[in-house]
Amino acid sequence: MTINADRLWARIEALSRITDPDRPWTRRSFSPLFLKGREWLAREFRASGLETSIDAAGNLVGRLAGSDPDLKPIVIGSHSDTVPSGGRYDGILGVIAGLEVAQSLLERGERLRHPLEIYDFLAEEPSEFGLSCIGSRALAGMLSDEMLNLRRPDGMTLMEGLAYVGGDPESLASVRRPSDGTAAYVEVHIEQGRVLEQENIAIGIVTDIVGIHRERITVVGRADHAGATPMPLRADALVGAARIVEMVYDRALALAGGDKPLVATIGKLDVQPNAANAVPGEVEMVLEVRCGDETVTRTFPASLIEEVRPSLAALGLDIRVEPVSHASPTPCAPIVRDAIRAAASSLGLSSRDLPSGAGHDGVFVAQTGPIGMIFVPCRDGRSHAPDELIEPHQAADGARVLFETVRRLDTILG
Amino acid sequence: MTINADRLWARIEALSRITDPDRPWTRRSFSPLFLKGREWLAREFRASGLETSIDAAGNLVGRLAGSDPDLKPIVIGSHSDTVPSGGRYDGILGVIAGLEVAQSLLERGERLRHPLEIYDFLAEEPSEFGLSCIGSRALAGMLSDEMLNLRRPDGMTLMEGLAYVGGDPESLASVRRPSDGTAAYVEVHIEQGRVLEQENIAIGIVTDIVGIHRERITVVGRADHAGATPMPLRADALVGAARIVEMVYDRALALAGGDKPLVATIGKLDVQPNAANAVPGEVEMVLEVRCGDETVTRTFPASLIEEVRPSLAALGLDIRVEPVSHASPTPCAPIVRDAIRAAASSLGLSSRDLPSGAGHDGVFVAQTGPIGMIFVPCRDGRSHAPDELIEPHQAADGARVLFETVRRLDTILG
Repeated sequence: MTINADRLWARIEALSRITDPDRPWTRRSFSPLFLKGREWLAREFRASGLETSIDAAGNLVGRLAGSDPDLKPIVIGSHSDTVPSGGRYDGILGVIAGLEVAQSLLERGERLRHPLEIYDFLAEEPSEFGLSCIGSRALAGMLSDEMLNLRRPDGMTLMEGLAYVGGDPESLASVRRPSDGTAAYVEVHIEQGRVLEQENIAIGIVTDIVGIHRERITVVGRADHAGATPMPLRADALVGAARIVEMVYDRALALAGGDKPLVATIGKLDVQPNAANAVPGEVEMVLEVRCGDETVTRTFPASLIEEVRPSLAALGLDIRVEPVSHASPTPCAPIVRDAIRAAASSLGLSSRDLPSGAGHDGVFVAQTGPIGMIFVPCRDGRSHAPDELIEPHQAADGARVLFETVRRLDTILG
Repeated sequence: MTINADRLWARIEALSRITDPDRPWTRRSFSPLFLKGREWLAREFRASGLETSIDAAGNLVGRLAGSDPDLKPIVIGSHSDTVPSGGRYDGILGVIAGLEVAQSLLERGERLRHPLEIYDFLAEEPSEFGLSCIGSRALAGMLSDEMLNLRRPDGMTLMEGLAYVGGDPESLASVRRPSDGTAAYVEVHIEQGRVLEQENIAIGIVTDIVGIHRERITVVGRADHAGATPMPLRADALVGAARIVEMVYDRALALAGGDKPLVATIGKLDVQPNAANAVPGEVEMVLEVRCGDETVTRTFPASLIEEVRPSLAALGLDIRVEPVSHASPTPCAPIVRDAIRAAASSLGLSSRDLPSGAGHDGVFVAQTGPIGMIFVPCRDGRSHAPDELIEPHQAADGARVLFETVRRLDTILG
C-alpha cells in the first residue's frame, strides 16, 4: 500500500468529532469550533513534516518543496468547514487525503519535481456572510471589496472574519495567482449523489463542475371561488404550472444521458392564495437547470417556455419569466482526468466519468490552472445531512487514487 | 311595478354603509356594528308594518299574518352579517328583498293565505366561534350543546353570544321546527360566480346547494440534492403531484356539464423541502370536489387515485389519502324551482338552472320544508371581497322574481 489507510481513517474520525455536540456534524466557518479544527489540522500538518501556514485569505496551507525550482505547485485539498448539521466527510476527506499523500511521499522518501501544496480552503460552504468558496476566490483574485464588506448577522465584516481566522485582508494580493499559477489542482470528495453506489463503482472522474442556471417562472391565472366557478370559466394557474413541471421532467429525462447530462428541477413552488376553496390565481416556481454545457443551461428554459406558452394561453394563463442567477460550468482538464483514470486503472479500481452537480473550490482554482476531481461513493447519496456516511475502504480508495494521480501529473506536467 | 326598486336600492346602500370604516364592507356577527345594523333593520321592519322580534336563536324575524290559520309560514330572507372586508351585497340583498316583498304586499293590500316570515338569520358566514349558519341550524334543531360551548378568541361562549344579540339560549327548543314546519323557503342571493354575467342571464334558479368533499392527498417521494441526482435516479414528488393536478382538471372538465355539474379543485398545495436546489420529497395537497350528486363527490377522488397510483408507483412515488370533510348536497325542491322559473318568465326575465357552489342557510332550512334560491349576477363573479358589486336593476330583478314566486307558492302550496 502506498498510503496508510488506518491513519487516514483515524484522522477523518478525529476531525469529524470536533463538532457542535448538539447538532453533529457541524463546524461552521469563522466559529471557535472551526478554529479548534484548524489547530488540530495544523498540528497534524506540522507533525507530518509539512511547512504549514495560514495565508492572507485564511487558507491553511501545508507545503512540500519540489526538486525543480522552476515548476509551479501541484495543489491538493478541500475544506474543513461544514454546513449546519451535515459535513461528517464532505470536505475533510479531501484535506486529510491530501495530507496523507504528502506524508506518504515523505515517508517513502519520494520527492516530487513540483512543489506540493495541501490546502484547507476557507469557507467552501455558504458562510454566515452569505458567501461560499471564500479562500479559493482569493486565489483567483475574485474576492471583491464588496464581498469583503459583507456582514454576518452579528455585524462582523468578512474582512474582520479573515483576520479572525488568521488571515491578512490587507495582503490579499499576495495570495492571488496568475492563470498559469498552478500546475494542477486535484480534490477528493464524496459524490453527494448515488450514481457510483448504484453502479457499484469505486471512483468517479469528474468531467465538469456543472453550470447552474435558475429562472423564476410565474404562471398568472385568476383566483376564483372554487365552488362558484364552473370548470370552463376557470384560469387555474396550478393546472398550467403542473404542465410545466411535467414538461421539465420529461425533457430533462431525455437529456439525462451522454457526455454532458442535464438535470432540471422545479424544487420550489408556491401557490396563491393556497386555500382549499380557492382556484389558484398565481403560481411562482424556480426552474433550476444544471449541465456541463453552458449553452444548454440557457436554451433549455427558454425553448421550454416558448413551447408551453400557447398551451397555457389556451387555459387563459400568462407566464412571466425572470432570470434569477447563472453560473457557467467549469470543465475538468483532460490531462487531469486522464491521470485519474490511469491511476484508478493501475490500482484495479473501477471508475466512470460523471459531472459534479454541486459547486466546489475547483471552480475558482480553475482560473489558475487545470483541475480535476476524484469522487468516492457515499451511502444512498446522502450529504449535507447528519446521516452522511462513507466506508473506510472508500476513503482509502480515494486517497490511493489521489496519490497515484499526483505522481503521474508530476511526471507529465511541465 | 310590483315592488319599489328605488326603496330597495336605498335600503341596500344604507345597510351596507353600516360598516367598519377601515375595512369596507365589514359587519361581523356578534359585533357592536352587527347590532347597529340589526337595530336599523328592525326599525325598517317595524316601520313597514311587520310584527318584529328576535327569536331565541338570535334571528331577526318580521311576520305578516296569513288568511288561513292552518297553513305553515312561507319564509324569505338571508343574513346581514359579513366576512371580513367583503359583504356589500352578499346576504343583505336577500333580507332587504324579503322586506320589500312583504311591504309591497301590505301596500297593495294583498293578503297571502300563508303567514309570511322575513328572516335575517344569525351568523351565516363563519363567525369568530368557528361556526357558520348559526341561526338556521337552530331552526333545524342542529345547534348542539358542543357548539353552544364554542369560544371565540376573547373567551366568550356562543351561548353568551346568542344572549348578546338578543337571543335566549335556554329556549332554543322554541325555535326548532319539525320537518314539515315551513311551507317553503326562498332566498335571493348574488351568484358569487360569473355564469349569469357571461351568459347575460338575469336570474339563476338554483338546482342544488352542492355537497363538498375534501381529501388530503400526500405524494411521497425522496428529497435529493438537485445537482447530484441524475433524472433517472429521482423520485420527485412534485412530478407525481403535477400528474394528479392535471388529471383532476381534465376529469372535472369532462363532468362540467349536465344537470349536476361537478367542480374539482386542488387549491392548496405545499412542497417539501421547497428549495430551488432540492428534488421535492413530499407534496401535500387538498382535493375539493363539489357536486349536487352525493355519490359523485365521493367516487370522483377515489377512482382518480386508483387510476393514477400505478403511474406514480412507476416514478417511485407513493400516495397517501385521508378524508378531510364531507357535506352532503341539498337539493332545491322542484315545486319552488318551478315557481321561480314561472315567475321569471312572467316578468320577461331570462333565467337558467345552476347549482350553488357555496353553502347557504337553505342547507339547514331544508330540514324543515322545501327550499329554493334565486341568484342574480354580480360583477366578474367577485364576492367576499371589497369589490363585490351588483347593479340596482339586478337587485330589483331578484326582488321582483321573489315577489312573484311567493305569490305563486302561496297559491299552490297546501
